[in-house]
Amino acid sequence: MKREKLKAKIIPLGGTNEIGKNMTAIEFKDDIIVIDSGLKFPEEDMFGIDIVIPDITYLLKNKDKVKGIFLTHGHEDHIGALPYVLKQLNIPIYGTKLTLGIVESKLKEHGLLSTTERIVVKPKDVIKLDSVSVEFIKTNHSIADSVAIAIHTPMGVILHTGDFKIDYTPIDGEVIDLARFAELGKKGVLALLADSTNVERPGYTMSESIVGDNFLKMFAKAKGRILVATFASNIHRIQQIITAAQENERKVAVSGRSMENIVQVAIELGYLQIDKEVLITLDNINKYPNDKLVIITTGSQGEPMSALARMASSEHKKINIVEGDLVVISATPIPGNEKFVSRIVNQLFKKGAEVIYESIAGVHVSGHACQEELKLMHTLTKPRYFIPVHGEYRHLKQHGELAVKLGLPPKNFLIPENGDVIEITRDNLRKNGTVISGNVFVDGLGVGDVGNIVLRDRKHLSQDGILTVVVTIERESGNVIAGPDIISRGFVYVRESEDLMDQAKEIVKSVLRQCEENKVSDWATMKSNMKNELRVFLYEKTKRKPMILPIIMEI
Amino acid sequence: MKREKLKAKIIPLGGTNEIGKNMTAIEFKDDIIVIDSGLKFPEEDMFGIDIVIPDITYLLKNKDKVKGIFLTHGHEDHIGALPYVLKQLNIPIYGTKLTLGIVESKLKEHGLLSTTERIVVKPKDVIKLDSVSVEFIKTNHSIADSVAIAIHTPMGVILHTGDFKIDYTPIDGEVIDLARFAELGKKGVLALLADSTNVERPGYTMSESIVGDNFLKMFAKAKGRILVATFASNIHRIQQIITAAQENERKVAVSGRSMENIVQVAIELGYLQIDKEVLITLDNINKYPNDKLVIITTGSQGEPMSALARMASSEHKKINIVEGDLVVISATPIPGNEKFVSRIVNQLFKKGAEVIYESIAGVHVSGHACQEELKLMHTLTKPRYFIPVHGEYRHLKQHGELAVKLGLPPKNFLIPENGDVIEITRDNLRKNGTVISGNVFVDGLGVGDVGNIVLRDRKHLSQDGILTVVVTIERESGNVIAGPDIISRGFVYVRESEDLMDQAKEIVKSVLRQCEENKVSDWATMKSNMKNELRVFLYEKTKRKPMILPIIMEI
Repeated sequence: MKREKLKAKIIPLGGTNEIGKNMTAIEFKDDIIVIDSGLKFPEEDMFGIDIVIPDITYLLKNKDKVKGIFLTHGHEDHIGALPYVLKQLNIPIYGTKLTLGIVESKLKEHGLLSTTERIVVKPKDVIKLDSVSVEFIKTNHSIADSVAIAIHTPMGVILHTGDFKIDYTPIDGEVIDLARFAELGKKGVLALLADSTNVERPGYTMSESIVGDNFLKMFAKAKGRILVATFASNIHRIQQIITAAQENERKVAVSGRSMENIVQVAIELGYLQIDKEVLITLDNINKYPNDKLVIITTGSQGEPMSALARMASSEHKKINIVEGDLVVISATPIPGNEKFVSRIVNQLFKKGAEVIYESIAGVHVSGHACQEELKLMHTLTKPRYFIPVHGEYRHLKQHGELAVKLGLPPKNFLIPENGDVIEITRDNLRKNGTVISGNVFVDGLGVGDVGNIVLRDRKHLSQDGILTVVVTIERESGNVIAGPDIISRGFVYVRESEDLMDQAKEIVKSVLRQCEENKVSDWATMKSNMKNELRVFLYEKTKRKPMILPIIMEI
Repeated sequence: MKREKLKAKIIPLGGTNEIGKNMTAIEFKDDIIVIDSGLKFPEEDMFGIDIVIPDITYLLKNKDKVKGIFLTHGHEDHIGALPYVLKQLNIPIYGTKLTLGIVESKLKEHGLLSTTERIVVKPKDVIKLDSVSVEFIKTNHSIADSVAIAIHTPMGVILHTGDFKIDYTPIDGEVIDLARFAELGKKGVLALLADSTNVERPGYTMSESIVGDNFLKMFAKAKGRILVATFASNIHRIQQIITAAQENERKVAVSGRSMENIVQVAIELGYLQIDKEVLITLDNINKYPNDKLVIITTGSQGEPMSALARMASSEHKKINIVEGDLVVISATPIPGNEKFVSRIVNQLFKKGAEVIYESIAGVHVSGHACQEELKLMHTLTKPRYFIPVHGEYRHLKQHGELAVKLGLPPKNFLIPENGDVIEITRDNLRKNGTVISGNVFVDGLGVGDVGNIVLRDRKHLSQDGILTVVVTIERESGNVIAGPDIISRGFVYVRESEDLMDQAKEIVKSVLRQCEENKVSDWATMKSNMKNELRVFLYEKTKRKPMILPIIMEI
């Protein structure tokens, strides 16, 4: 085999130029390795959509090559699309113990547990495939058991960091395997794909253990009940809350479905250490005085249906916020969620709780590497080519610039877009075509049945509502038998707008008369005339543009 | 008159427990002074609403007492509701020159200029009314010509700071009149109402002049065209951009309707100093090399229709972003706007521009007082009573706590809610009843004609769309003459859902048959049966809940 013929393809199917929906296909000869399979939460203009998942047309077309999905960690933006992908593509999934533990409860819900092959791996494990082998490398992140993935090819290693930070004092004592990254760097990393989330932040991300120190201090001072909201998946954070509770002889109860699930999984798998008598159920909290209680809850993003939101609005069945409660929101609002969090903070304050939240430092740290950590990763791995991933364009671009500052030749990095086929040979990096990619909307049971037309209609309806015009016409004679009737929803107060509706009806009648006079008997023209005349009339009267839906029934 | 009988009422009609929509009524004997008349931009669940204004029922009921609207400054959240208020209540408005200059272009748009009495005031001016007199006091803020308002009553001064910061080196050299605040404090401030926006931030707000220094450095280094986006109303910021441009021998052009308006007003009124040959029109920018140009533009909040957004998406008619452009976003995103700003930053980066934005310090400072400045204000004015305003509950509460730390007895402050009647006597502060208050929605030409039912419908429509069922029935016989027809919008792709629609039609038919069999001839029951059966069926099939609108036409 000639050396020059060797090439690998890297195809981001999600996670570039966006936050979330992470999925990357790496192809070498007859092997396609899929790294992660994440979801994205809908943007505000994706009305009614529950979640967004990657388009996997390319994988379906190349089914026979796809050897498995290799998971870096158990966050929704890396595993959330799995059930939808696995329904179309029954392939093995590889992940560490906790990651697969979280995945399993998801698969159970979708009835996929028995049909999905799951391979538990640990850092340093290597999975040998036909032409490549896949190695897992310990990293740190805001969830336990996260790994980077190294794909060994004859051309060199293609290294995907996954989400990572460098934590010298992680809660489980498992420091990111810097030595292995250095070793790979020495051996020769062909291409590095690295997390760009925090590239705009100078310096280092603080260690998770800082948060624990602050919890200890805070808990020691608290005189009433303590409630801490955080991400359910942040096992280390939860461990630190538990530790601080135990140190202060407080019992711990857990609220919120996802929190209960994950805490259970984590205890079963040995990722959470808690004395048996410390963990109590919510039903039992009233048996203990307030100053002997810590409640760990979901809702740190202000999600309107979450346990914390229900407590704040007095809709929680078992917990009522009272004066003297200390509520700690141990998270930073994800852009777009600030207002939700703010609403809850106000409600909690109104109920007399003391609230510690974002602006006050020390109760949250990021899970992503800042600039100095990224520099360390680049310096250790010394990749020939660099492809920034996990970020919006501005992050990817700035990550590329950071690499160039560290000595990477500018032509050796490129900013990927979802669907790009990035071709790597030993001496060249280039985009060579694209594959189908994009957003697939999940709405209720429908996957992909809501597209741009439906969304456009929902947006239109949300702005000015709808006005339906119905008329029954006798086919033969063209005579109006019933109607026109006009019914509106979301447009104006019906009661206060009778005049407007009467006038609108007159306009429809006059359109019908004109059509009769001009012997127009095709319904499409008639409808379009109604629409146009009504649109002009309503806009003039109200400066609003409701959707106008004319319906002609014929007998 | 007995001393004990004297009392004043303070009634916040907007701006407490919310950001924006600022309006406070202060009542003493037969005088009602209205301070500001602001709008609020709609929250994300106020679908289709353009702006939100205060409910002024109380003012309308007490028309004869209302002596005027006294404006603190020209920001929308303090003047934006004026046209709507003045249409119902023709009273004089008092404001400084720039404030009224901005108000006037607004009144012109609404055809109110000739019918509105406008009194230009300047700091230290005192307006004498029947039982009180109203004094204007110079402050600093992110707009020129801002003032605090002191209402002198026989019981002492009621002092409203308006939005303020303390800037020792403001651009126009006009430092907040600290001496007058101290003097009033010495004389005896009965009640202080103060801006709470930045109460969560420790320390001091930086001086506006810091931004100018950074512009100078940045402009001196720039090699291509410079575009700066900022709030149109921030005249001082605009002055500093102009100054930095002139220093660097660059011409200045202005883009965006509100920016053009305000720059024109500010130049006419003498608030902006610019050499005549420096200001050029957008049509002439191509006559100058890129490194001789600065463009000041709207869009610093990422507003989708703004000039900057149009430049970023290549929809601006006169400006095309090119490689080498430096774009400075001289603002911080207001919560909720982060994603809009982020989208534009990504687009600008993609076009090859260098972008300086929020995370990078020094191109923006806040217009509101931080903790140390608030402490100074409290310490100088030494109020007997304190009522925090301009903020959400958490801000108001923390502002109260700050005052208490400075020595205010806790019973001498209270957290107001819109509509509260706060009664003040020489020796007592209490809430005594409420008046009608709240949000009035402006949608197109409609003011107040969109309420909760319409909004609820719009929300429902936005989530899952609508399904209209139409059937024509002969009244006499109860026979179905035409239909049922089913038309949906925003629910599912119609083409891909023919089966579902056919099944839905069968369900409607069976409801109609049942009704016939049971001799149900009242349409309401028939419609409600259709709705219920369809709702269950559609939810089972799709897990969605579209609005279902049954229409029965009778002949």
